[in-house]
Formats: sequence, structure tokens, C-alpha cells
Amino acid sequence: MTRPPGGPPGPPLGQPGHSTGGPPDPPPHHATVGPVHIVGSGLIGASIGLGLRGLGVEVTLEDPSPAALAVAQQVGAGRARQADDRPPLIVIVASPPDVAGETTAIQLDRFRQAVVSDVASVKVVILEELRQAGADLSRYVGSHPMAGRERTGPAAASADLFVGRPWVIAPAPQTTGQAALRIRELASDLGGYPAYMNASAHDAAVALVSHVPQVMSSLTAGALAGAEPGALDLAGQGLRDMTRIAQSDPNLWAAILVGNGLAVAQVLRQVRAGLDRAIAALDLGTKPETLGHALVELADVVGIGRQGAELIPGKHGGTRRVFDKVTVMVPDKPGELGRLFQELGRLNVNLEDLKLEHGAGQLVGLAELSVPTGRGAALASDLIEQGWRILQ
Amino acid sequence: MTRPPGGPPGPPLGQPGHSTGGPPDPPPHHATVGPVHIVGSGLIGASIGLGLRGLGVEVTLEDPSPAALAVAQQVGAGRARQADDRPPLIVIVASPPDVAGETTAIQLDRFRQAVVSDVASVKVVILEELRQAGADLSRYVGSHPMAGRERTGPAAASADLFVGRPWVIAPAPQTTGQAALRIRELASDLGGYPAYMNASAHDAAVALVSHVPQVMSSLTAGALAGAEPGALDLAGQGLRDMTRIAQSDPNLWAAILVGNGLAVAQVLRQVRAGLDRAIAALDLGTKPETLGHALVELADVVGIGRQGAELIPGKHGGTRRVFDKVTVMVPDKPGELGRLFQELGRLNVNLEDLKLEHGAGQLVGLAELSVPTGRGAALASDLIEQGWRILQ
Repeated sequence: MTRPPGGPPGPPLGQPGHSTGGPPDPPPHHATVGPVHIVGSGLIGASIGLGLRGLGVEVTLEDPSPAALAVAQQVGAGRARQADDRPPLIVIVASPPDVAGETTAIQLDRFRQAVVSDVASVKVVILEELRQAGADLSRYVGSHPMAGRERTGPAAASADLFVGRPWVIAPAPQTTGQAALRIRELASDLGGYPAYMNASAHDAAVALVSHVPQVMSSLTAGALAGAEPGALDLAGQGLRDMTRIAQSDPNLWAAILVGNGLAVAQVLRQVRAGLDRAIAALDLGTKPETLGHALVELADVVGIGRQGAELIPGKHGGTRRVFDKVTVMVPDKPGELGRLFQELGRLNVNLEDLKLEHGAGQLVGLAELSVPTGRGAALASDLIEQGWRILQ
Repeated sequence: MTRPPGGPPGPPLGQPGHSTGGPPDPPPHHATVGPVHIVGSGLIGASIGLGLRGLGVEVTLEDPSPAALAVAQQVGAGRARQADDRPPLIVIVASPPDVAGETTAIQLDRFRQAVVSDVASVKVVILEELRQAGADLSRYVGSHPMAGRERTGPAAASADLFVGRPWVIAPAPQTTGQAALRIRELASDLGGYPAYMNASAHDAAVALVSHVPQVMSSLTAGALAGAEPGALDLAGQGLRDMTRIAQSDPNLWAAILVGNGLAVAQVLRQVRAGLDRAIAALDLGTKPETLGHALVELADVVGIGRQGAELIPGKHGGTRRVFDKVTVMVPDKPGELGRLFQELGRLNVNLEDLKLEHGAGQLVGLAELSVPTGRGAALASDLIEQGWRILQ
């Protein structure tokens, strides 16, 4: 995406037109026709504005916070809407979830020719609010770009925030096909990949892939508060993976979970049944006469989990690609990882994936390199020749 | 670690003596004095044997499976023990957990001058079995090398399996300091870092850092079985992290969980209390009059998790190092990641850490590069100059 000529200064973006070997240029055509009005200029709203401005689409902004509005304009996400501006063809409501429904109803009423979409992370409650408000649902398109980052606010906005991310399009039963198409096109123009589903399917899906995992991570991490001194020095990659998202913002997550309360509670009740089963089996396992039954029960709980994990699509949409894997031991000193990559660069390695692992107090980390099938052995022996240690 | 002269052929190892810039040589001195006898030649037993043989220590092996014993000898883990061999000074029991206690008691009785250590992943039940058998606990040292890999069996053995990993040393109250020291030295000789704790502290610690996270991952993944078609296409890095260890072997994990049943059940009951609290709050959140209370409760559940997550030591034992982070967008085509690393190599980047993220159907992955504080901006602009797109 190129910067609009003469646009306000903002964060630098790649310059694909001058690529000397970087990623390919984005498609030069786009389908979205402005003006697009964005209500709420936080991270998501400002990122949408920035992306659309990069395509040359006219974007106006509003936000109850003058500071957020000023920053969003400063980063190039659009300009503040004026009373005499012509009416928008598309309105994007990127307000906080607790006011998104009301704001969407107001915008549907305010701009009678516009397609209005909200980007809240739950969809059923919004739709319900709009129904109760008697809003014109034929022009409403629920949506949910599955993008975010650790930082929030318009200063963290990026035109590239949505590139390669799912963007759920959740029309109401009354939504016209034309209205849904406009939002699908906007999602595609910003690099997202649109996925149609209705509001309740969306809420059930995000409960499974996002909200319940958040609760499970928080509960796993919460148990660590009772750890004896030294116990957590034994933490390995498993615990780190299981508690990464537990570091999220509690108030933000409380609002998200409440907003999808029915769907989340339903899955959590199912989780609790599994947990009860595991606890009961552990109790049975302490008595020799019920040990066998306990083992069968626990293996089933773990086995059901393994089956579930296998349902998650691989990085290429359903098929997991298989590569040769070479695990290199990297001394935990500054620059060693950089030195490994210099080596890989020199060896002209066609690297497909890379996982790093290192825990507390470890003297080395492990770098698992994935290379095309059949190339692993040669890479391992090249690295050994250069003095690297390979975990065989 | 160098290969013993004239040893049997096995997997190639690094040749630190001929390093041309690889990791530093391992320490030339070691403290362990053989013969060391290893009972059980699976992954852990054969890896210990391989590591000790690499130091020139005399190692004998036994295993109820002639095939496992043959493979272990073949990879260079030691030789089968003969009736007229001199008695070992150290015996390592690396049998499956359900027979480790009985086997350890037999070895303590069989070799009256030897220090005997088991490497089972639970310690209280083993100690209890030894007490009941009337074993000589002064020469017993429980231990637990926190190492493993996806493959099992002696063919997957590696002398480097323990390098940089915690190795718990759990003496009984009756264990002599001299006996514990011998096992601590053996752990250090193999590159592990020894951590002393008693058996019940060990079991409580591994329940928290390993066994409970496994159950939570299995339960999170187990809930996916009910997903509607398309729902899991929305899966992102959070769900992937939360379900990675759910892919583990159900029968192996059933045995591990039962072996540490008391400690695991205790933590899981605490987790269940938190889960009940979350479910109750979600129910309250559906009614306007109790919404506020629901939000406070949920924020507290997530907040307790965040506090717990912060207790996990960073990679440098308690302090989290802060780096500049630069996130590069990598087109999801073969070789693009390799090309990025060539670039990093050319730019002579002192890379400290790297995280890759990509989900289903994504056109690009994100590579988050950690570099020394103050170097991020320069790296970002160098990469942009070379045509890469940076997520600002």
C-alpha cells in the first residue's frame, strides 16, 4: 500500500514500488468507493482509515475523545467529519463493544443511504440491540476483523493490521446481498480474507477459538500464585505457551467475555464436565483397585483433546505441510541467534518455518528449522561442519 | 561432546574441537566416576549413556527388551552389563514410571556400594515405595531431568538432550550429602542445571508447571470437537499456543497424571473454583442488574491470571530482558523466510529472539524480531529500504 501523495506524516510503510527483492506489490485495484465514515478512532478504526487512505479512498473520522481524533488524523487515518461533508456510502462503527450497538443504530438512522458495519468482537448482542431499536437491518452488516496487537489506540494503527487475517462478515437475515458485498470488498481491499457466517455462528466460533482459550490461560496462570519458591524455575515451553495470553488486559477481557456470555458459558460448562471427570479419575487413581479405571478415564480426556487439536487447520487452510526439521543448539549469548541466521543466509537455506525454545536459566536455546523435505540432512551436516551443535 | 574413540557408529554430533565459529567447546573436565550402570535404555536412559560415554565414562546397560538394549548399544550409549563386570558406583534407573520404584529398590539391594537414582517424573510415590520396601535410602537420590522430545526410544537418544535443562535433585531425608553430590555432578556433566528440592516440593512444582497445563490444554482442545464447519478457520496464535501440548500421547499422560494424582488434583480443584466463578459471572452478566458485578468478577479472574503469568521467570532466571521489537511481514511463499534471514545476516543484526506467527489461509506471516534496545528503528528502516514491509 502506498502513501497518499501529500498525506500527513505517519508511520513509514514498505515501499513496494521500489522493491529490491521484498514482498510483491499489493494489487493496484480496489473496490471500495468512499466517502467512508469511521466512528471511533482507536486502533481498529484508525487502522481501517489508514488502509483506506492508502488506497486513495476518502475517509472521515469522528470520536468522542478529541485527543484520539487528533492522533488518528495525525497518523493519516482520515480527517474529522464536517457538517457540510457529503453523506458517506459506508459507515464503520469501531466504538468500544458496550456502546457499539447503540452507535450503530444511530448511524443507520443518521445516514439513510449508507451501509453501516460495526467491528465489535461479538455479534449477537449487537444484532439484538439493533432489532430492539427498530433499525433498518437491510443496510446493516456485522463484521469482525480478527486482528489486534498488544498496543492499543490510534498511535498504534497500521494500514497492514488486517493483511492475511480472517475478517468475519455476519449479515443479518434482512441484510441485502449488495450491502454485505460492500463490506466484503472493504475487508478484501485492506488485505483481510472475508469469512461469511451468521451472528450466532460467529459468537460460537470466537468462544471456541478465542474467549474460552483466554479463560483457560487465565485459570492456568492463576494457579501459579500458590507456587513455592523455586517451583517456577522448572517452567518450560509448555507452561509459557499456556500462559502467554493470560497477560492480557483484565477489564478489556471482562467486557469481551460478558458480551459473548451465553456462548462462552456453554463451552465452559462442557470444559467443567471434562475437568470434573479428570479430578474424579485422579482420585480413583490413588486406590489400587480403581487404578485401571482411572488410567482409562484420563487417557480418554487427553485423547479427546488430541482429536480436538487435530481439527485446527494448519497454516495452509486445512492441510499441514510436512517439512524436514533440524534442531540447532544456540548458546544463550547476545548475537548467537544472529550468527546462526548469517550462517543460514550464507548456506542459502529455503527456510519454511522456525521455532525457538528457551527456558529459565538455560545456557542454550533450541532453534527448530523447517526446510523442504529431503533437505534436512544436508543442512544438518553443513551446520555441523560450521561448528554448530545439532540435536539429533 | 566428542565421540569415544572407536565407538560404534551413531548420529553425528557437533565437533566443537574444530569449531570455526560455532558454540564454545564444552568443559573438558567432568566429575562423574564410573562404572555407571543404566537400567532401562529408552530415550532418557540411552541419552544419559550417550552423554557419559562421550565424556569417556564407563557405562553398562540393561533393559528387559533385547531390541531396546541392542539399539542403545548401537547408538553408543554403552554396552550390555556382563555377570563378571565390576560393580557400578552409580546406578541410574530409567524404567517406566510404574516400575521405577520397584526397580530402584532392587538395584539398591543388588549393588550395596552404589548410589542409585531414578529419573521418573514423579518423586513422592517412588520414595514411598522405597520406604515400604525397607530400602537403604542413604544411597538413594531421586532425580528428574526436565528433558524430553517428541520422539521416544533409544534411537532418538542424544548426548545433548539435557544441555541447559533443569535437572531436579530430590534427596530423601536419609540421603547422604555425598550421594546427592554424585548425582548432581552427573547432571552437571551432562549439561543440565541441577535444582535441589524435596520429593513433595518437586511433585507440587511439576503439577503446576507441567501436569496441570497439560490437562488444561487437553480440555481446551477437547471443546473443539463440537465446532461448526468453518469455525476453526478463525483460529489464531492464541488457540494454537493453548492446544500445542494437547497433541501429546494419551496413555503416557494418563500414567504421569496418576503418578502425581494428589498434587495435580489439588491444583485442579483450585482451577475448578476459578472456573465456577467465571461461569457464575457470565450468567450474572446476562442480566442488566448484575452486569456490573459480573464485570468485576471476570476482571478479577483474568487479573489473577495475569499476576500468575508474571511470576514465571524470564529466560534469564527471573528478570525479563526488554528489547526493541520489529515485526516484519513475510509473504507465505517458499523461501521468503530464508530470504529475510539472508537479509538479517547481511545487515549483521544482533538478533536476541524471534517469534513467528501465521494462521490458516494467511497470505503473510509475521516475524517479530527482538534486537538490543535502541537498535529497532535502524533495523526497521534498513529492512524497509530493502523492500520489506514492517508492521508499525
